[in-house]
This record gives sequence, structure tokens and C-alpha cells, in this order.
Amino acid sequence: MRKVAILGIGQTKIGEHWEKSLREIGGDAAFAAMQDAGIEKVDSLFVGNMLSPIVSGQNQLGTFFADWIGLWKQEAVKIEAACGSGAAAFRAALMAVASGDVESALVVGVEKMTDKAGRDVTAALATAADADYEVEQGVSFVGINALVMRRYMHEFGWKHEHFAPFSINAHANAMHNPYARLHEKITVEKFEKSAMVATPINLLDASPIGDGAAAAVIVPAEKVTKKQRITVAGSASATDTIAVHSRKDPMFLQAAYLSAKQAYEMAGVSPTDIDFFELHDAFSIMSTLSLEACGFAERGQGIRLGLDNEISIGGRIPVCTRGGLKARGHPVGATGMYQIVEVVQQLRGECDKTQVDGARIGIAQNIGGSGATILTHILKSDV
Amino acid sequence: MRKVAILGIGQTKIGEHWEKSLREIGGDAAFAAMQDAGIEKVDSLFVGNMLSPIVSGQNQLGTFFADWIGLWKQEAVKIEAACGSGAAAFRAALMAVASGDVESALVVGVEKMTDKAGRDVTAALATAADADYEVEQGVSFVGINALVMRRYMHEFGWKHEHFAPFSINAHANAMHNPYARLHEKITVEKFEKSAMVATPINLLDASPIGDGAAAAVIVPAEKVTKKQRITVAGSASATDTIAVHSRKDPMFLQAAYLSAKQAYEMAGVSPTDIDFFELHDAFSIMSTLSLEACGFAERGQGIRLGLDNEISIGGRIPVCTRGGLKARGHPVGATGMYQIVEVVQQLRGECDKTQVDGARIGIAQNIGGSGATILTHILKSDV
Repeated sequence: MRKVAILGIGQTKIGEHWEKSLREIGGDAAFAAMQDAGIEKVDSLFVGNMLSPIVSGQNQLGTFFADWIGLWKQEAVKIEAACGSGAAAFRAALMAVASGDVESALVVGVEKMTDKAGRDVTAALATAADADYEVEQGVSFVGINALVMRRYMHEFGWKHEHFAPFSINAHANAMHNPYARLHEKITVEKFEKSAMVATPINLLDASPIGDGAAAAVIVPAEKVTKKQRITVAGSASATDTIAVHSRKDPMFLQAAYLSAKQAYEMAGVSPTDIDFFELHDAFSIMSTLSLEACGFAERGQGIRLGLDNEISIGGRIPVCTRGGLKARGHPVGATGMYQIVEVVQQLRGECDKTQVDGARIGIAQNIGGSGATILTHILKSDV
Repeated sequence: MRKVAILGIGQTKIGEHWEKSLREIGGDAAFAAMQDAGIEKVDSLFVGNMLSPIVSGQNQLGTFFADWIGLWKQEAVKIEAACGSGAAAFRAALMAVASGDVESALVVGVEKMTDKAGRDVTAALATAADADYEVEQGVSFVGINALVMRRYMHEFGWKHEHFAPFSINAHANAMHNPYARLHEKITVEKFEKSAMVATPINLLDASPIGDGAAAAVIVPAEKVTKKQRITVAGSASATDTIAVHSRKDPMFLQAAYLSAKQAYEMAGVSPTDIDFFELHDAFSIMSTLSLEACGFAERGQGIRLGLDNEISIGGRIPVCTRGGLKARGHPVGATGMYQIVEVVQQLRGECDKTQVDGARIGIAQNIGGSGATILTHILKSDV
């Protein structure tokens, strides 16, 4: 397949944007990415979104946004893989450009969630789980993750407070990201005293939802004339059973392991070559499971990277350098594209106080469902 | 891009399958396609679906089906473009195989709609239209098409009865398709006396919804060792404004014209080379608009092809040879894949009494919304 480069990026601040429509939020990120890329038109538009059919009564978001941003006539399509929708849209666009049939593509991850009441959003998010065998039993999406976290604590002997560094790191990094939803430093004490959501997951273990959009323009790498060229060195997608209870080992993210392995091979790199990792910390338990599955820690020991301060800027493997899902926020179908945008920002050296020195290779890993669909992308800077 | 071939096809009978779950319906078509292809595993799964988040409370259908049919670990994703979801999933799979990153893909178009009450399905289908500027006004999806049909009749001087041949032809062809929802011959009299849905669209102008799934396995063409090889000669997707009222001319299917033009160019063919046309007759008005936009008739004159008997088997351009949306049925997100499967059946010479003699090149055209997203695929037989 031909090499593909990222020409431009754009994003909106995550929040409760009751004054902005779904159209406007996605459009703002799209326009920003097109402007950053210095182009006015693309061949094809790929939109990642999970909830608009349920929350906004709107399907066909590809054409919906092509219409709104003036890409009349152009190809447009929507991709959905629950909270992995953003990266899934990115990968679909990548395949289209890599095939030679499409010369430029715009990828927009977008979600508008906060117009609905909390219980409606909780029900909508549960569509990521197995409707017949999980949701039917009354378990919520956070409830499923709570069961995994409890088992992990039991199995490997960790206490709740040991997960604190993941949330503290995310919140600390988000302080320097103007697009983040939360700008609030937290401590171990605050983490431990936070309101319980689904034992043992409390409010500071869980990422906040939000309205937001992030976008990127991709083109064949040979067409990039800028001095710094950022290419997609690795891309892979893998799956696991949709219901967590069907897995032999619910604490092993098989799809993270497989997609990371394939992406490493494609990029010709190993975990030691990776400068930073934008991981999918929807819940603090997912941080440690992701680090373990992707080769940064032994089973049950990912948590040590947090305790040993290896995940912060300057550590062995900085994670969630712009705040992660925990503090940047988690507008579900948009999250995968926020991660791609943030990896590009690091590779460009645009991250100010959370800049990873000499960042040249970064990973973005996006998860749909409780580890059911996992996409791994490795981006590289040519300079 | 490298050439791609269709190795196997599968489909289920369309109907009200209250005894079968969403899983089972999609799985049946998937297994049939894999068996027909003679393979047990594929690299990637692409699922086309429109309504499951709303009707079944289930998102992430890619992984949902990968899990169900035993494609554990493999890549899986869902594509949505309203009623164009099936062809959109097919095109996404095509890009993936054409890129060289994926060596085999299974595409499943699936929809389960009849478990809900009629008014709920009508509301769900309206998510294909513009929620803010069409649906908000109280117009249903059939209502929008009725406005277009009325304008067409006024503009070009046709009467309602002149649309009858499209429905009569579809019903006649479906008599010989065991997978079709309706097996009932109709006449002009019956057509004219049918119950009104949204003036001037009556029940026999409109396609019935249904539960169903259709699937295909695709691989690089060079890997096919069978004597007859069916390849994807042309593929294109184009869009129009999502709201019909935003178009300069609501009776011109711009996206059909553009995607057909691009597909013709890619395949190196013109309308006179086409042996048959599986068009998207969601409503009878769409048949004439599609024939006009794709170069088979002048503006306002597509209807003559019906009146002159040119659309039936043996005519100049046979359409809906397996019953079309009108009589085979329209399980919305699955329809595009039924069309692909039917084109393959014709090219293989498997259509018995509705076989187009010497069929070598066929088109499948799938529409999302009221002409908003249109995908055109041209399939060719090597023998």
C-alpha cells in the first residue's frame, strides 16, 4: 500500500456546547483541519460517530457534514465502532487513500451528547455492549468495567489508590491543553474521596463525556512538500468478543495486543522505540490493561508505570500527554480522532509544557466497547 | 489500485423474521457467502447497517458479527449511509483489499426492522433525512419522496398510472426469486387502486421494509482460480445536499449521475455496454430518476422505458431483475448488498426465468436518503 501522510489537523474544545448544533461542532473541526492543511477541497469525507442516530435523530452523518461544510458532490460516509468510531473512520480513510482510488480525505470524529439527560446518555452508551447478553441483564457500561477492575485488583493485589497516578497524570497534562474539558489538578486524596459511580470505579476513575470534534486531512505521502512530514507508519484493527464474560481472560486486552503487534510490525518498530502513547483511558483500569497489552509492562504490572512516575512527561512512556479521555474528555465517537490530532501535535513539537522532548514516533490507541474493537495507529515524523 | 474479485455470495429470504435475532439473520447470510466462497476465515469484516442502534439497541455491529460468526480477533467495522449502507460497506471493503493491507474481506448488509411498530420504524427511517430542516417540520421520508414525485408529474406531464410498469416489472421478476419478500403479480388496475400512503405515492409505488441480510466475500482478483471470475470494474460514491429542498433541481439525482459517470470511466464502459441495472426503486419515482441520471433516458423520459417494455428481461435495459426494492423487499441497510449479490447471480447465469441472456456487465446502484448518498458499482464477468 502506498504511504499516507497527515497534512492538517483541527479540533474543538470539549464541553457542554448547548449553544452549538451537531453540524457546527463537526464543521468547526473540519474547517480547522482543512485550513491547517492549506486546502479547500478533498475527494472523500469519513465521519466517525457513535450516538447521533439515538441522541440527535440523525443518520447518514457523512453526507450530512459534506453538505454542511461545502463538500458538495464528494464521497462521504460514516463509520461506527462504538467509542472506537474515530480511529475506525481514520483507518477507512487510510485504506481509501492507500488504494490509489482517493487522493485526499478528510476524517472527522464528532459527538454531541450533552443535550440529553444523564440516564438517556447512559442507556445510549450501553449500545456499545452486548444488548442481548449484557445490557438485558441491567448492567451499564461503567458497571462492566467495574467488574473487570475489581477482578484485576483481586487477582494482582492492587488497591484502589494505586490507580490514582493515571488520573493525576491525565489531569496534570490537561492543564496545558486549551481544548480539554477539565482544567483541574487532582491529588491522591481527592482521587480517593471522589464520589462512587460503580464500585470500585469512582468519578475520578471515569472519563467525562462531552460534545466535541477532531479532524485530520490525509494525502499520499509523496504529495507532501512541507519540510516536516508526518506519516502513518502503522495501522491495524482487531477485535475480541463483544461481551466481556465470553473471554477466557477478561483482564487481557487481546484486541489491543493484536492490533499493536500488527501496527509495530507494519511500522518496523518495537515498544522501546515509542516516544509516547495516547491510550484509551475511559476508566483508569483501561490504562494499565492497555500498557500491559501493548508491551510496556508485564501482566498485572502496568500500574507500576504510574507508581514509578514513568507515564508522565519525561518518563519512560508518557501517556495521555494532552489529558487523555480522563481530563481532555471523551466525546465517544470523536475520541479516536482527538488522539490522532494529539499525536500529530506532539510530533510537530506544539505541546508547550507537556511536550515530549524529541518526539518522533507516537501511538494512538482507540477502543470500542469493553475492549471489543481496538485500533492502533503509529505515526512517525520524518524530521 | 489492485483489481478485486467477488469470490462468494449469500443472502436470506426477506420477511418478518420475529423468530430470528439480528445475530442469526446476519450470520446466516455471512455463513452462506463464506461457504459459497469456499473459505472459513477472512482478514476483515465490513457490516452495512442503518437502524440497529435505534431498533435493536445495538451498536458496534462489526465486532458484534465477527464475534457471532467466529471471526474472533479479526478486524471488523460498521459503515452507515442510511439506505446506502450496504454498498458503502462494500466500497469500504473494496478500498481495504485494493490497498493491499487486507487480503480478504467479508461484507454483510443486515437489517432487522419488523420487531418495532410501524410508526416507530417510520420515525427511525426519517433519520435518513435532515433532522433539523426536514424531519423537524413533520415530514416523513415517504412524504419527501411524494413531493418529488408530484413535482415530476407536473413538470413532465406524466400521470400516476405511467409509473405502473416499474412496480409491475419488479413484482413479475420477484416471482422467480426465492429470497424475495413479495411473490404476487400485480396489474395496472391493482396498482391504481392500491391504498394511498402519501399522495401521490401509494402502497404499490413504495417498497416494503423487511428483515434480511446479504453478504459477499471479496479477494484480490489475481487470487481467483475459478474459471469464471467476477470483478469489480467500477466503484464510486457521490453525494448531494441532505435536504431535498436545498437542491436547485430536486428531480435530478446529481449523486447518481456523478457516481455512475465515475464508475463508467473506471470500468471503461458506457451505458450502452450495460446488460442490466439493479437500481434503487425505494419508490417508483426513483426508478425513472435513476434511469435518467445514469444515461439510459433523457430528463423526464425515463418513464418511457417502462411504458415501452424496455426494462423487463429481454428489453434494452432490464432493471430489478430479482424484484428490486419494490418486491424483493427493502431491509434498508442490507439492500445495497442484495443488489451486489443479485448482479453476481446474473453474471453467473443463476437466474432461471429472469436470467438476462449473455449478461456480462451489470450495475448495482444504492441510494442513501432522498438521493443524498449514491454509490454505483459495476461488476464484470471474465467469461
